[in-house]
Amino acid sequence: MKAAIVTVGDEILIGQITDTNSGFIAKALDKIGIGVYEMLSISDDRLHILSTLAFLQNRVDVVIITGGLGPTKDDITKTTLCEYFDDHLVRNGMVEAHVVDLFEKVIGREASQVNKDQALVPSKSTVLHNAVGTAPGMWMEKGNTVFVSLPGVPYEMKYLVENEVVPRLVTQFERPYIIHKTLLTYGQGESHIAERIEDWENNLPEFIKLAYLPHPGRVRLRLSARGVDEAMLRDRIALETEKLRGLIGDIIVGYDEGDTIEVVLGRLLAEKGKTIATAESCTGGRIAQLLTSVAGASAYFKGSAVTYSASSKVTVLGVPQELIDKYSVVSAEVAEAMATGAQKIFGTDFAIATTGNAGPSKGDADAEVGTVYIAFATPQGIYSEKYDLGQPREKVIERAANKGLEKIYQEILKN
Amino acid sequence: MKAAIVTVGDEILIGQITDTNSGFIAKALDKIGIGVYEMLSISDDRLHILSTLAFLQNRVDVVIITGGLGPTKDDITKTTLCEYFDDHLVRNGMVEAHVVDLFEKVIGREASQVNKDQALVPSKSTVLHNAVGTAPGMWMEKGNTVFVSLPGVPYEMKYLVENEVVPRLVTQFERPYIIHKTLLTYGQGESHIAERIEDWENNLPEFIKLAYLPHPGRVRLRLSARGVDEAMLRDRIALETEKLRGLIGDIIVGYDEGDTIEVVLGRLLAEKGKTIATAESCTGGRIAQLLTSVAGASAYFKGSAVTYSASSKVTVLGVPQELIDKYSVVSAEVAEAMATGAQKIFGTDFAIATTGNAGPSKGDADAEVGTVYIAFATPQGIYSEKYDLGQPREKVIERAANKGLEKIYQEILKN
Repeated sequence: MKAAIVTVGDEILIGQITDTNSGFIAKALDKIGIGVYEMLSISDDRLHILSTLAFLQNRVDVVIITGGLGPTKDDITKTTLCEYFDDHLVRNGMVEAHVVDLFEKVIGREASQVNKDQALVPSKSTVLHNAVGTAPGMWMEKGNTVFVSLPGVPYEMKYLVENEVVPRLVTQFERPYIIHKTLLTYGQGESHIAERIEDWENNLPEFIKLAYLPHPGRVRLRLSARGVDEAMLRDRIALETEKLRGLIGDIIVGYDEGDTIEVVLGRLLAEKGKTIATAESCTGGRIAQLLTSVAGASAYFKGSAVTYSASSKVTVLGVPQELIDKYSVVSAEVAEAMATGAQKIFGTDFAIATTGNAGPSKGDADAEVGTVYIAFATPQGIYSEKYDLGQPREKVIERAANKGLEKIYQEILKN
Repeated sequence: MKAAIVTVGDEILIGQITDTNSGFIAKALDKIGIGVYEMLSISDDRLHILSTLAFLQNRVDVVIITGGLGPTKDDITKTTLCEYFDDHLVRNGMVEAHVVDLFEKVIGREASQVNKDQALVPSKSTVLHNAVGTAPGMWMEKGNTVFVSLPGVPYEMKYLVENEVVPRLVTQFERPYIIHKTLLTYGQGESHIAERIEDWENNLPEFIKLAYLPHPGRVRLRLSARGVDEAMLRDRIALETEKLRGLIGDIIVGYDEGDTIEVVLGRLLAEKGKTIATAESCTGGRIAQLLTSVAGASAYFKGSAVTYSASSKVTVLGVPQELIDKYSVVSAEVAEAMATGAQKIFGTDFAIATTGNAGPSKGDADAEVGTVYIAFATPQGIYSEKYDLGQPREKVIERAANKGLEKIYQEILKN
């Protein structure tokens, strides 16, 4: 069973926007055993859309189209679908009621006629309810091929893929079972991990595939088993996961696909009834933002002092001015005083503090670009480490935030 | 003149890797007036590659292919090119010498036979020298179409595009001029903007296209003019931009492609020599993180108190406990006291404060999910506004952060 993913929109073709939708959809399809034959990005051009649909109809079972569903003139996907299906637009009452409601309750003004026209859909289409936006998804069939049209706004597309498209595909098509297991590791690179698990990997059965999904500072390992006997696949995946735990248990922090270091850390803190705060200079609130991106964070995250200026490190966190004068703001001593200060003012068990130079040029202190001190305050005491996190700016911030969370996680485990 | 960009490799089709090469190439081509007709990602499959090349030959002037040039078995682009061009591989002495040299000097070991075989190229191809890697680029022509094959490693691809491909295309083809202008607007939706500029949009000349690029809380408008008379295009884009300023100047905050609200706000604060701080509850540090994502933010951003717990609002920001008891933590009164507190402890001209319920469930206070109070402290005084920002959690946080920055920007403009 094969699918094609089509992105409609000039902004991708001139390189202004990177298409991340196709990758998301490909992952979702891969999980349910549907292979992607081809991904295409084409322009908001009627003839181009028509010829692409015709081309793909003979080649795949499912065509998923994103983009071109907005209310403005350059959005022509819907009328072009009508042309391809020899159909016409009709007003869908449920969609219109939803649009009117969304405008009233969320946007706080009345929906205009243009907004209400989002409710115009091809008469032959099945509407896919878009709870998080105004443009509905549409499901149409021609010959043996399913065509699904989705809005290009990533979170609306994601909502529809997860809640409407995948469940319908699973019901409508027979596919092999695919069982995935994703493990989250922190602190070691892809090639290092590959060496540690080489023998195990070489002895994996044919029907299990291993993929390395690397990100800065962390690597996900995904095991995928494909076959007809679901129970056997589950048992074998569980067995291989156990073997992996034996080999690299020291760097595995999570066993679920949604696991990130902030999710795992939050779960651990909540379980232990412990609390955390941060004091951030060069990370500028990124660690706090990661921690609070998790629902329910208020149970264990108490707050953060983002002390970007030197004076606020003194006034807000109580870092002694003498320390700054003697060692400079980018130093182990100041990082540790910041962490202790955060622990104190927020009254928490643990605290992380960062001070460094994220670049692009040298700041107040003489520290090289990429130099970051991270301090870790625990009930047992305080320590800090110095890191050279390279460049550019956004990578330094990201690496420092991940490193801080990874290290404090190890500390919390001990408590 | 039209181009197509083809990416070869299974890792993109299963969503493991996001294709950023195509966007880079598209931008480079767009700059020299070559429009991209289509982008495709296809598998490492001989027949699929052959049919794609044949399909594109009739449609575009230039086909740029990346990927599948590595030394391993699954890299078949080169042999497939030979098949398409009815050609055979020959050993290129210059490339082999370069590979041997690169291994000796950079990698520090002798090149193996597999490495040396990177010097095998189709006999009809023009070799494009890859100074930063072992796989050469290849330039071939069939009919009126140029086919360029490049390695998929991003920095090698970039080197070849900039140093070999673009210079050759500029010499070989006559192209039109393309002038872009991107405007950043805040605070109004795509459809609302479309209504306000409808007459103007309807009267745009044929050679200028308008695109709406929406994100939560902001919309970019991109004007693209294409033609042979560069000076005329520039003049007309300037004229239309002026007209737009007249129509929607109140919501335009930036006139450059890299402009975001945090960049524009930072520029304004730096120009005026003013400073800012934030006090964040429900946004959890997101506003601070946005402000500090801009290089040089330390000139105007002093810090943030992320007071997630009620008690830290009292101890860190000096919010009176009575206010919290009387109005609850999610209230206009507490938001305003937080903003005043931030202004005071960080010693800044401006401050933004947020308190609300980002969801998914009701928190400490009785506030509905999505309810957020944002307070704005200025040298003239303090005020706050109540917003219903819907759901889910990450959207509430993102909308509140954008709304806070947008509003304070308007305040700073007045000062």
